[in-house]
Amino acid sequence: MSYSKKPLIGIIMGSSSDSKIMHGAAAILDEFGVKHEDQIVSAHRTPTRLADYAKHAEKSGFKVIIAGAGGSAHLPGMIASHSTIPVIGVPIMVYNDKSGNSERFKFSAFGGLDSLLSISEMPTGSSVVTVGVNKAANAGLYAIKILANEFTELQKKLRKHKEKQHYLVIKESEEMKKLGLAKFAKKKYKT
Amino acid sequence: MSYSKKPLIGIIMGSSSDSKIMHGAAAILDEFGVKHEDQIVSAHRTPTRLADYAKHAEKSGFKVIIAGAGGSAHLPGMIASHSTIPVIGVPIMVYNDKSGNSERFKFSAFGGLDSLLSISEMPTGSSVVTVGVNKAANAGLYAIKILANEFTELQKKLRKHKEKQHYLVIKESEEMKKLGLAKFAKKKYKT
Amino acid sequence: MSYSKKPLIGIIMGSSSDSKIMHGAAAILDEFGVKHEDQIVSAHRTPTRLADYAKHAEKSGFKVIIAGAGGSAHLPGMIASHSTIPVIGVPIMVYNDKSGNSERFKFSAFGGLDSLLSISEMPTGSSVVTVGVNKAANAGLYAIKILANEFTELQKKLRKHKEKQHYLVIKESEEMKKLGLAKFAKKKYKT
Amino acid sequence: MSYSKKPLIGIIMGSSSDSKIMHGAAAILDEFGVKHEDQIVSAHRTPTRLADYAKHAEKSGFKVIIAGAGGSAHLPGMIASHSTIPVIGVPIMVYNDKSGNSERFKFSAFGGLDSLLSISEMPTGSSVVTVGVNKAANAGLYAIKILANEFTELQKKLRKHKEKQHYLVIKESEEMKKLGLAKFAKKKYKT
Amino acid sequence: MSYSKKPLIGIIMGSSSDSKIMHGAAAILDEFGVKHEDQIVSAHRTPTRLADYAKHAEKSGFKVIIAGAGGSAHLPGMIASHSTIPVIGVPIMVYNDKSGNSERFKFSAFGGLDSLLSISEMPTGSSVVTVGVNKAANAGLYAIKILANEFTELQKKLRKHKEKQHYLVIKESEEMKKLGLAKFAKKKYKT
Amino acid sequence: MSYSKKPLIGIIMGSSSDSKIMHGAAAILDEFGVKHEDQIVSAHRTPTRLADYAKHAEKSGFKVIIAGAGGSAHLPGMIASHSTIPVIGVPIMVYNDKSGNSERFKFSAFGGLDSLLSISEMPTGSSVVTVGVNKAANAGLYAIKILANEFTELQKKLRKHKEKQHYLVIKESEEMKKLGLAKFAKKKYKT
Amino acid sequence: MSYSKKPLIGIIMGSSSDSKIMHGAAAILDEFGVKHEDQIVSAHRTPTRLADYAKHAEKSGFKVIIAGAGGSAHLPGMIASHSTIPVIGVPIMVYNDKSGNSERFKFSAFGGLDSLLSISEMPTGSSVVTVGVNKAANAGLYAIKILANEFTELQKKLRKHKEKQHYLVIKESEEMKKLGLAKFAKKKYKT
Amino acid sequence: MSYSKKPLIGIIMGSSSDSKIMHGAAAILDEFGVKHEDQIVSAHRTPTRLADYAKHAEKSGFKVIIAGAGGSAHLPGMIASHSTIPVIGVPIMVYNDKSGNSERFKFSAFGGLDSLLSISEMPTGSSVVTVGVNKAANAGLYAIKILANEFTELQKKLRKHKEKQHYLVIKESEEMKKLGLAKFAKKKYKT
Repeated sequence: MSYSKKPLIGIIMGSSSDSKIMHGAAAILDEFGVKHEDQIVSAHRTPTRLADYAKHAEKSGFKVIIAGAGGSAHLPGMIASHSTIPVIGVPIMVYNDKSGNSERFKFSAFGGLDSLLSISEMPTGSSVVTVGVNKAANAGLYAIKILANEFTELQKKLRKHKEKQHYLVIKESEEMKKLGLAKFAKKKYKT
Repeated sequence: MSYSKKPLIGIIMGSSSDSKIMHGAAAILDEFGVKHEDQIVSAHRTPTRLADYAKHAEKSGFKVIIAGAGGSAHLPGMIASHSTIPVIGVPIMVYNDKSGNSERFKFSAFGGLDSLLSISEMPTGSSVVTVGVNKAANAGLYAIKILANEFTELQKKLRKHKEKQHYLVIKESEEMKKLGLAKFAKKKYKT
Repeated sequence: MSYSKKPLIGIIMGSSSDSKIMHGAAAILDEFGVKHEDQIVSAHRTPTRLADYAKHAEKSGFKVIIAGAGGSAHLPGMIASHSTIPVIGVPIMVYNDKSGNSERFKFSAFGGLDSLLSISEMPTGSSVVTVGVNKAANAGLYAIKILANEFTELQKKLRKHKEKQHYLVIKESEEMKKLGLAKFAKKKYKT
Repeated sequence: MSYSKKPLIGIIMGSSSDSKIMHGAAAILDEFGVKHEDQIVSAHRTPTRLADYAKHAEKSGFKVIIAGAGGSAHLPGMIASHSTIPVIGVPIMVYNDKSGNSERFKFSAFGGLDSLLSISEMPTGSSVVTVGVNKAANAGLYAIKILANEFTELQKKLRKHKEKQHYLVIKESEEMKKLGLAKFAKKKYKT
Repeated sequence: MSYSKKPLIGIIMGSSSDSKIMHGAAAILDEFGVKHEDQIVSAHRTPTRLADYAKHAEKSGFKVIIAGAGGSAHLPGMIASHSTIPVIGVPIMVYNDKSGNSERFKFSAFGGLDSLLSISEMPTGSSVVTVGVNKAANAGLYAIKILANEFTELQKKLRKHKEKQHYLVIKESEEMKKLGLAKFAKKKYKT
Repeated sequence: MSYSKKPLIGIIMGSSSDSKIMHGAAAILDEFGVKHEDQIVSAHRTPTRLADYAKHAEKSGFKVIIAGAGGSAHLPGMIASHSTIPVIGVPIMVYNDKSGNSERFKFSAFGGLDSLLSISEMPTGSSVVTVGVNKAANAGLYAIKILANEFTELQKKLRKHKEKQHYLVIKESEEMKKLGLAKFAKKKYKT
Repeated sequence: MSYSKKPLIGIIMGSSSDSKIMHGAAAILDEFGVKHEDQIVSAHRTPTRLADYAKHAEKSGFKVIIAGAGGSAHLPGMIASHSTIPVIGVPIMVYNDKSGNSERFKFSAFGGLDSLLSISEMPTGSSVVTVGVNKAANAGLYAIKILANEFTELQKKLRKHKEKQHYLVIKESEEMKKLGLAKFAKKKYKT
Repeated sequence: MSYSKKPLIGIIMGSSSDSKIMHGAAAILDEFGVKHEDQIVSAHRTPTRLADYAKHAEKSGFKVIIAGAGGSAHLPGMIASHSTIPVIGVPIMVYNDKSGNSERFKFSAFGGLDSLLSISEMPTGSSVVTVGVNKAANAGLYAIKILANEFTELQKKLRKHKEKQHYLVIKESEEMKKLGLAKFAKKKYKT
């Protein structure tokens, strides 16, 4: 089931490898039945696409844009500069080095702090928001909260989602209380 | 002029002194004619008010909650845990020491990084977004973007706001180009 | 042997995966014969349980609550807001990503600094203390020190524990002095 | 009124100038009627006093030691090494330069992060806890929570203290709600 | 005297207040007789000007663009995306708060680290370089070094500039050696 | 094909192991047909070579020096002190421990921040620029931009390089749009 | 009184303004009667003087070199590269901006962390040590400890210095114990 | 061959596992023929040994103490408080978790920054110096430089050591120059 025939959310990311993290945003939208369109828009490699994508997004009636980017992470801020659609930034920490680095390090140099600050510290008047580093799923969930202002069906689903989370914690807690912490950790995580 | 008789936005903050920063959010909402209700809700000093405020916010029909907090900044995340209304966090760096510190330092110890991370690094499933440190005005502007999904009048105002910003930069740039950087800086900022 | 029939310490954590670290607290309490009750209480997924757990803890006569949490780590501070029982926070750095991240990174983005500051930088009047990142065992040991104010038997055990540590260092030091550093490191750690 | 004729809490600090922050701990203890003894014990300038002070503290029957220190902040950890009394560290950020610095800077170089980590990151088996940077009052409040395990009178006072905080927030919030954020900030803080 | 009738260097900055720092770049270019054109180009408030300015810069024959920006500092990277002219970024740390902050703090929250990383951590293939925080003069000097590849007259001036710096250090050093450090510091800086 | 018979660019690095990163600079220069000479110059192990190399570079007619260094990374700044040729620093984060560390850690202690700041924070009058951590390829690309001021052939190649990047993003974006994010990530990265 | 007719210690610093901090090193040497020679040697503005100064230092029989530097702080490491005399680095955080900054900020951008890491993180084989940020007096004291290996007279003075520090702490502690912390802080620091 | 029958250097470390790093200090001392005595002295687990070890060190005629420690790293500072022998601290970053952590992480939480600052930021009057994180070999080399003030034989060896380093760099550089960077990196590091 889905809330419109056309996508309501645009998911974009700065590079192909960001999809390793960003598919988490798609997963939660799919779970809630919210259609989305997924693209790669690089602020640095395709700067002229910024304005084009912004126009496309407004014409398509997107209500939220989720924009993931790593390193200097200019994409969320630049899309927000070209449009009035609310943009949710996702700072990405994933290593995809093509700069002559033969040992494929798994982390970027600054643990995502560079991307987090580049998205959050926008000047007054240029408003972008950010979720935590690699928290693509939370960006998806926040987009659903925004949509739920208009779609009461989503409102209900959000409440059920909360209840389900609550129930799962209770269940695990009861198991831990019964087994005791040591046995619980050994059983679940082979500590 | 205003988009509803009742407030659409709830502004809350963890302490009275946060109002030194948070009034920036109120100012931009007022400029766009968006009604808001302003309260103090301390996650630590009034924990039972969290659920009460969440209920009040949902009953009042708030469409966005703007929550400012400094230090360990639990307020935005805790309100989001009690409600499905989208919450925009504002990490606050302002010094209001009552802990026995006689020299009234102007900055908190960690430059707002503590608050920024406490708001952004929420676990998956608990979705809060943040603007930059002390960027209360940007939180207000983002709330307007969310509302503009429903109120096309606000959409138009947002575009005018962008145009005005654009025009002001052009005007200043022309003055700088004509005077040259040295004279411009001397004239404007007495460098 | 144990100091009461009922648990004196409540151990809680924000998520099931935190048990990978938190069982260190249980281990030291078990070693000293101090009973504890272990639960999962998520500030974000089960916010209403915060007040319930606080009441449960006071009714159960817990004398210390040990609360482990990662990321934005609101749990220790929020429990402290609902109760007057001393809370010891444990900032946790363990990766349990469900946010769409397919490469299971072993570290969180900020090395636990986010959690450490979120626990320590509480506003004046909301008092929580913290141990170092992942130092669950030290939280357990500190809880025992607090109990030892009332249970002199624990006081004696603490002194023996100190003496044993002292003796182990002396023994290892003598081995190092005799073998020399190079041989010692080679023998012990295959350097 | 006070809970014993002799002091129950030892307050120590590494240098005379730390008293600028540490008197906040004394103030809250005085407010709750808890006697304390205040001394300067420098881990670096009076290392032999560490063991002497530990013996003095145990003989005096102190139930908690509050230890404030700045810079490399070894005092809390070293006192904990010499005693089994629970130690609460207070990382201090106050500038008292005698090292040839003619411009009296108001902040130390690392914003207290050096002291915070030096207190928190103790090895397993050496258990110290810390409050936030300069949060001397919170250290005092935590000491009272520990004492309240034995003195039910203090338990009652802690609850009243919480209620008073709650009431003050409510009162300020009502004023803000009535005046609106802009007028509130202007009235209170001359913004 | 000057190396061309038209400007060879474009100086741009993200906001009017950046001129407080950026005039340092103009000063050194003026000292070397290198013509420059100064403008304000905001990546966020005037995004469409980015491509226009890039075209203007290429048509004007600029050989280097010096771009200063604070906060999330997207300007240097975005201009580099629109042009092949070498761009030198200047991370700026100056406070010009219009976001509702009534106490005019003198420093931004992250000491310029946000801007430094936002400029330096560009993805492979999008090449921008940066000087240190607020080092506008060094950006000017580097632009002159680039020009000196084509203008041998500038090469000579650069060498004289180096010699002059060298001579000034020698002269001050001799004074210090003669007076001794204590008297030197007292005389020069009233220590 | 190549723009001169002699090398136009000098690539240097502080240690043999830096070649693991620095060959990325060589690769892009080779791709553009720009000759370069590659050497190891250690500021600390061969300090007298600094002046010698600077003379060699000027005599060889190098137009840019690319200097990679890790840890305290003095090489780029020291070469710039001995010459007026523009120097591009590359902060390097690669572990090559010979200091008695038997477990070959893959990361240096500070994630390259030490090297980045050591290169960027040069005093006024000593002008070096830096690219991001390990971004050797971007240093090579920037050197080409500097050369393109004189060699219009390189100018054309830079434009083609940009167009190719643009085309590749478009192509990948179309694939993502068609497949959807989940399938794209699964196909490309086996998420 | 003094331990030789010629200076035994060379004090150098990267810029004239560093004398505001470095005179603290001179003061302690003077207090102990140790002769020193004070000069300015800029690694960046006078690179050829590095080798010359190293020769001068060895010929003069200096037994320790104390080298203060701010920002990228290459001086201590570079002098150590040219000589085998032990070098003690002093990371300096003092603002002396000539780079076009009209508002004379009092702190550098990175709180001295840039300088501290640039001095400490030398590659294996290039050995420099550092004291804390601005701790010039401690560098002087350490130099005296090194000299005391040869001059037993200094050994005695060091012990007296320690005893005096000890005595001063005891005296202040007794005053605090008698007055109580609140009155002590009020009397000494007008809290 | 060796400079004395008795050890001249005391190497100590806070825990057995620090030997994984500290044997690097022993190796360089052995290479120079300098005798050393190696022990474990834990500031926290054996606090009374601090004074004992200091007396032992002075009686043994140690001329330098090399002290390695991780985490809160109090050992170097505390030993320096008990003695006038120059102490060289080595901040250690190695993971040896016994605190209930079942996944044996390889890095500590703060990358050694906690230990570095805890050693360097000593108060004025308590003088310790530090080398970089894990740079045990450099601590050994610095100890040799201190000894070389008295033993001219060591002076000569230090010069030869420098020459050998110089020669090795030259040789590698020539190979790189001949092969070119790409082939060199491929041959040496299988890039």
